[in-house]
Amino acid sequence: MRTTATHQELESLLRDDVPHGDLTTETLGIGAVPGAMQFAARDRMVLALAEDAAALIELAGCQVELLAASGTVLEQGAPILRAQGSAAGLLRGWKVAQTLIEIWSGVATEAEAIVRAARAVRPGIAIACTRKNVPGTKQFAVAAVKAGGAVMHRLGLSETILVFPEHRAFLGDTPLADAAERLRRAAPEKRLVIEVTGIEQAVAAAVAGFDVIQAEKFPPGDIEALVRRIDAMAALRTRPIIAAAGGVNAHNAAAYAAAGADLLVTSAPYLARPCDVQVRIVRAPAAV
Amino acid sequence: MRTTATHQELESLLRDDVPHGDLTTETLGIGAVPGAMQFAARDRMVLALAEDAAALIELAGCQVELLAASGTVLEQGAPILRAQGSAAGLLRGWKVAQTLIEIWSGVATEAEAIVRAARAVRPGIAIACTRKNVPGTKQFAVAAVKAGGAVMHRLGLSETILVFPEHRAFLGDTPLADAAERLRRAAPEKRLVIEVTGIEQAVAAAVAGFDVIQAEKFPPGDIEALVRRIDAMAALRTRPIIAAAGGVNAHNAAAYAAAGADLLVTSAPYLARPCDVQVRIVRAPAAV
Amino acid sequence: MRTTATHQELESLLRDDVPHGDLTTETLGIGAVPGAMQFAARDRMVLALAEDAAALIELAGCQVELLAASGTVLEQGAPILRAQGSAAGLLRGWKVAQTLIEIWSGVATEAEAIVRAARAVRPGIAIACTRKNVPGTKQFAVAAVKAGGAVMHRLGLSETILVFPEHRAFLGDTPLADAAERLRRAAPEKRLVIEVTGIEQAVAAAVAGFDVIQAEKFPPGDIEALVRRIDAMAALRTRPIIAAAGGVNAHNAAAYAAAGADLLVTSAPYLARPCDVQVRIVRAPAAV
Amino acid sequence: MRTTATHQELESLLRDDVPHGDLTTETLGIGAVPGAMQFAARDRMVLALAEDAAALIELAGCQVELLAASGTVLEQGAPILRAQGSAAGLLRGWKVAQTLIEIWSGVATEAEAIVRAARAVRPGIAIACTRKNVPGTKQFAVAAVKAGGAVMHRLGLSETILVFPEHRAFLGDTPLADAAERLRRAAPEKRLVIEVTGIEQAVAAAVAGFDVIQAEKFPPGDIEALVRRIDAMAALRTRPIIAAAGGVNAHNAAAYAAAGADLLVTSAPYLARPCDVQVRIVRAPAAV
Amino acid sequence: MRTTATHQELESLLRDDVPHGDLTTETLGIGAVPGAMQFAARDRMVLALAEDAAALIELAGCQVELLAASGTVLEQGAPILRAQGSAAGLLRGWKVAQTLIEIWSGVATEAEAIVRAARAVRPGIAIACTRKNVPGTKQFAVAAVKAGGAVMHRLGLSETILVFPEHRAFLGDTPLADAAERLRRAAPEKRLVIEVTGIEQAVAAAVAGFDVIQAEKFPPGDIEALVRRIDAMAALRTRPIIAAAGGVNAHNAAAYAAAGADLLVTSAPYLARPCDVQVRIVRAPAAV
Amino acid sequence: MRTTATHQELESLLRDDVPHGDLTTETLGIGAVPGAMQFAARDRMVLALAEDAAALIELAGCQVELLAASGTVLEQGAPILRAQGSAAGLLRGWKVAQTLIEIWSGVATEAEAIVRAARAVRPGIAIACTRKNVPGTKQFAVAAVKAGGAVMHRLGLSETILVFPEHRAFLGDTPLADAAERLRRAAPEKRLVIEVTGIEQAVAAAVAGFDVIQAEKFPPGDIEALVRRIDAMAALRTRPIIAAAGGVNAHNAAAYAAAGADLLVTSAPYLARPCDVQVRIVRAPAAV
Repeated sequence: MRTTATHQELESLLRDDVPHGDLTTETLGIGAVPGAMQFAARDRMVLALAEDAAALIELAGCQVELLAASGTVLEQGAPILRAQGSAAGLLRGWKVAQTLIEIWSGVATEAEAIVRAARAVRPGIAIACTRKNVPGTKQFAVAAVKAGGAVMHRLGLSETILVFPEHRAFLGDTPLADAAERLRRAAPEKRLVIEVTGIEQAVAAAVAGFDVIQAEKFPPGDIEALVRRIDAMAALRTRPIIAAAGGVNAHNAAAYAAAGADLLVTSAPYLARPCDVQVRIVRAPAAV
Repeated sequence: MRTTATHQELESLLRDDVPHGDLTTETLGIGAVPGAMQFAARDRMVLALAEDAAALIELAGCQVELLAASGTVLEQGAPILRAQGSAAGLLRGWKVAQTLIEIWSGVATEAEAIVRAARAVRPGIAIACTRKNVPGTKQFAVAAVKAGGAVMHRLGLSETILVFPEHRAFLGDTPLADAAERLRRAAPEKRLVIEVTGIEQAVAAAVAGFDVIQAEKFPPGDIEALVRRIDAMAALRTRPIIAAAGGVNAHNAAAYAAAGADLLVTSAPYLARPCDVQVRIVRAPAAV
Repeated sequence: MRTTATHQELESLLRDDVPHGDLTTETLGIGAVPGAMQFAARDRMVLALAEDAAALIELAGCQVELLAASGTVLEQGAPILRAQGSAAGLLRGWKVAQTLIEIWSGVATEAEAIVRAARAVRPGIAIACTRKNVPGTKQFAVAAVKAGGAVMHRLGLSETILVFPEHRAFLGDTPLADAAERLRRAAPEKRLVIEVTGIEQAVAAAVAGFDVIQAEKFPPGDIEALVRRIDAMAALRTRPIIAAAGGVNAHNAAAYAAAGADLLVTSAPYLARPCDVQVRIVRAPAAV
Repeated sequence: MRTTATHQELESLLRDDVPHGDLTTETLGIGAVPGAMQFAARDRMVLALAEDAAALIELAGCQVELLAASGTVLEQGAPILRAQGSAAGLLRGWKVAQTLIEIWSGVATEAEAIVRAARAVRPGIAIACTRKNVPGTKQFAVAAVKAGGAVMHRLGLSETILVFPEHRAFLGDTPLADAAERLRRAAPEKRLVIEVTGIEQAVAAAVAGFDVIQAEKFPPGDIEALVRRIDAMAALRTRPIIAAAGGVNAHNAAAYAAAGADLLVTSAPYLARPCDVQVRIVRAPAAV
Repeated sequence: MRTTATHQELESLLRDDVPHGDLTTETLGIGAVPGAMQFAARDRMVLALAEDAAALIELAGCQVELLAASGTVLEQGAPILRAQGSAAGLLRGWKVAQTLIEIWSGVATEAEAIVRAARAVRPGIAIACTRKNVPGTKQFAVAAVKAGGAVMHRLGLSETILVFPEHRAFLGDTPLADAAERLRRAAPEKRLVIEVTGIEQAVAAAVAGFDVIQAEKFPPGDIEALVRRIDAMAALRTRPIIAAAGGVNAHNAAAYAAAGADLLVTSAPYLARPCDVQVRIVRAPAAV
Repeated sequence: MRTTATHQELESLLRDDVPHGDLTTETLGIGAVPGAMQFAARDRMVLALAEDAAALIELAGCQVELLAASGTVLEQGAPILRAQGSAAGLLRGWKVAQTLIEIWSGVATEAEAIVRAARAVRPGIAIACTRKNVPGTKQFAVAAVKAGGAVMHRLGLSETILVFPEHRAFLGDTPLADAAERLRRAAPEKRLVIEVTGIEQAVAAAVAGFDVIQAEKFPPGDIEALVRRIDAMAALRTRPIIAAAGGVNAHNAAAYAAAGADLLVTSAPYLARPCDVQVRIVRAPAAV
């Protein structure tokens, strides 16, 4: 069972919440009483970070049986995991594990909703999530995005070429085609991506030789118009990929896909509501 | 300028996003061109984590002037910070700093909305936020909650006494009053808090001697009924505090306050949409 | 077997002492010879951090059987743990594990002595230890305090309200009752604690509405006088708790308890001598 | 001003005590009031870790002027440092900084007492402190030992050759001289140290060629007898150093020195009481 | 002055070498004597990690003036940095700083030699270094590679598509074109790279639609043959890039460039000898 | 199976290379296919860090059987380890594990070559490696040096006395004998080592009483001359050890040993080429 977080990161999550034991449990004097805990999906959800949640509960001192893997679509009521241990252990691990699954399954579920909506119209279209996750949670965000069937647009600034208008502000008089040529030579193993904010900019970027045109906040209609313009350009060395970005979500994903976008780039999953995980904790029967 | 995160944590946030430099900037060869960057509020917002964002941009190699402190209510268009540095520095620090402010100002803004709504009805009422933040972001969550004028319900399990039904499941036949007495003796410096899910339970908890009755998912009408019941109980050693919890948000906060709750406990700020921070990056004029 | 320290912290303790192997063992060429090690109590002691010590020896490469749990009162000669492994492993883990138990069992033993002395006079009285532990060892200190049957006065500055004279220096003309009211409103889930250095101050604090009066360096006689004064005050909303603090130790704990203190606050356990742990290391018999 | 701890370690010490701000100060609403703080020696003491304490107070957001360097002997009342800042900053940094100086100056003061006592009898004799410090505090312990004018016996197991009886248990039939020869060949840049528990063992170790005879729990009289025996041995290649160890402290150090020990090895400083640091915190005058 | 390593990493490098002060300097009693230190290039070298070395010496307590930036080609004798401080500070920072520059400038110098050799024949050709650096030193390796004018082939496994024969072993009967199509759909923003070990494999990969053909251990003659084959293939949607990899170094880089490789992939810089940095340390003149 | 690196360090090595999964494997959809991996020596080599490599592959999610221990001399083709797991696990752990063994076995192999060459001439002579390893890799370097049968010259600055000319620059007029006497008194448990750059200096150091004369860049002939001079000095209290340092490697080690050096000090192993580890990865047969 591989976790996304390292052992140390999981210990740190647990200690953030329980730096010196569960005071209530200790003071009540119930820590040693044996019990059991179950996690289940309250509604349909795409499960994420379940392995890490299970590992957290183990770190809290319990035995855990994971009943569903991250990436699984769970129907309402479907079991997620089962744990056994002392009251101290169960109550220590409970909330962090629950919150971890709830928040990141929310992200996965929303990502999957976008994927599903878009592929209903255009099978096989890729959905890429941005890097606008809560700072400090990239490991979890990437895992949740993948659990939802999407991919990462970029992991960070160090591994892709994506020219923002903010980069162009520093280019001065350099023609865009020269910039593209410079990029192509210096980074021949990378696709060249450029963000554009209007159709003419997009066409110019295609002419300049960019591989991916990231159309920022284009309505679906403009995406459609752009696709037609690009398809009509005979002289292009390579037909660039059209990516719709900015405001893409589960409600409009089908429209963007239908408009001809080759790729949807979205931050919407990070805004999703957490899923609800139902937790049941019981005292173990006396016989046990 | 004290930051919430440690120096190491800020370096880690930056490296998460830019582990080995901004490839686009380096490949375009524009890294050394001087420029300037400004952050401003796109809409009214309660600013949070601005000191940390400023420190991040400094770590990226720029000089930063912070124009508003965390906790400030910013009107639309109000400036947040101004930075100067090389294109490499500005573009390296930009997005993480922006995202940090956007997400946590969203939390602060929602917290402040709840505080404002409740205090319009009942001045001075306290609003406490739960510990259901994204695991791994407690430092930021606490800072944002405070920036919004709320307080933390509890930092974790180690420093407060809060008896959940899940604790009671392990108490067996122990009468509640005995449990309360045990807690009071062993933790005389703590208020005793108990979560209840119905009025009779609440009354029983008051009788048992708990200091704070956390009424979970009571509609405002039930809170009102509970308050009347409690106020009518002559024999109580101390009149307990009534805390409304579960589903409290900016829309119903006034109703809960009007119903007589002494305290609102809420997770709603963590579900808030990020605020929008407008970023403008320009090349420095040749004369500079 | 849950440890107080994280895996990483235990590895760090071991590496602090043995960064690159035991040079003597390696140079003698005896590292692979099998052996056994036993820890036992040289005198009566309250055991602390035994789980962490056992885990350290395991990290050093041995198999460990823990024979007594932290919190146990051990009589002279009682066994603590038994380990088996190579000479290299045993000699690597030995001293750090021994020192860990010796120092923190010293703290636990002294805490338990104070608890015992005070409860002989006033059963059920709580003993709270301060945060004046060696900086950087809070995890161990808290664990040892609990092993000795005491509780923590406060974990740090972020989770309790304790007004020192040093806070009052910044209050200016604000009347104490106003300050107490401000605290009560803003932190309704916390008891309000105040440190006082004389009886009149204590009475004023009770009148102002504080929940816990921490009487700093009062002789037992003054505690008794204060208790009488407080008990005689009819108008108090709630009878505050009287905590004796400053110089409380195993020798005077009974006197303070007899004087009527509801709570003893002490740093004395941190000054305790380490307990003696007898360690026996032998070469395994040839047949093994 | 070089500190012993790293920046990260100091931030960690501060966060251990104040993970999320000083709740009392925040709730009282006095955080922004300016003030000043002074640390002074309540009694004669050898100052230790003052640079780290100063850095902690700076990390808490204050300006600090360090008035005495670690290693200095301070007379009663002598000033240590002066800080200026907001109430929030001063009250945040106060206790950790104070405790750090108090505990480690206690160690330094005791180490210096042993050095002084021994050198009164035998000028220039070296005092070496063992590695029996509180696990996790080696950096501070070493700094305090040096501040007191002593040296470290060994930093850990990886850099010195010290044969314990526990090593010899694994040597089987190997004659001690053979073991010494093996050590000398394999580690020609190290002195060979051996712990002995009786005079005959000591003489045998000298004959075997060890460079340092660490006499464990010898009374001064036995040290004297051993010195005479060794001095009378004509055939020794090199006259070994006699180190007295086990139970050496400020009370008997002179006796051990007078008995002819070349070196005293002691853990006593780690058992010293903390020194008292007097802290005065005042509100800054209105004019400031 | 931005460093490659974080503050914490630099402190860790220093502590690795000087965990508890420079014993020789302390024992000689010369720590406080003021002095100066200079670093200069003993031979022509491409400077790397100079900013980090300067920061290390500052961390050791000295003032440093950096005289050349990483990435600069230094002629024999050219100055690198100048430091002033106490003997303790200078001697503490000296060797780690020197070794850091020597080793990584060796890497940068070799990378630049390959770049220079290849570009003499084919201007603008890109040189990419592999990820076969010493595990744990990726930050430094990437910085040195860039200082030498080369780029990173890939930072790790998470951000590029590179199909090894070891991946193909798991593909079973899936035709290569199907695999390429699957990759293209799922990762539309990535170029598809494949490692091939013979000309026919390379041609098949081109036909299957890969964007970059990484020709492993082809002699230059085979590269030339492959280029001719590829150029003659009319039906290719896009002409793939030919990368020569495996055994490429400064001696054969020109031959590979002349053979028509579009890109050279090499691990050779990691095998380079460290450059020699001449260090001069002097006592400051009495007048200073 | 004890590793040299801590669990956290191993996780960090893996994450450096694979921060967010193996993109190629995931995108190909082959992650779950079972397979096996074997590591074998391509040529004679002294194995190093094999335990850590095995642990890395386990961390990647596979089962590993280690077939040879670090320190073993492997003949060409000898197996090192065997792993079983999913394609995702095997491909994730592969390269870091391979590189770790290759680089550090290179160091061990070279160290052992020097040891062998020197001992062929002078059995039992010790070979000590310097601290000029790649900064940040000391743990691995020390382990590899020991695997090759050599010892560490010094772990860092804190645990040995080694007087460089750079120290002497700060001594002013102090006669060398006085400095030696000061060192001997203050650090009686350490041998006194001094670096000299000529025969007369060496003789002077011997007269001054140093225990180890580290002859820097002496040709073997000068070592021989020095040994004769030293042996002829009747008045020396102790005959110092002669260590040859600076440029010592496998080619000249025998000459230095023959010249009479008692110890060779070398950095040459750190410049060794990595050994070649042959890796074979196969899909598991369908029956499995």
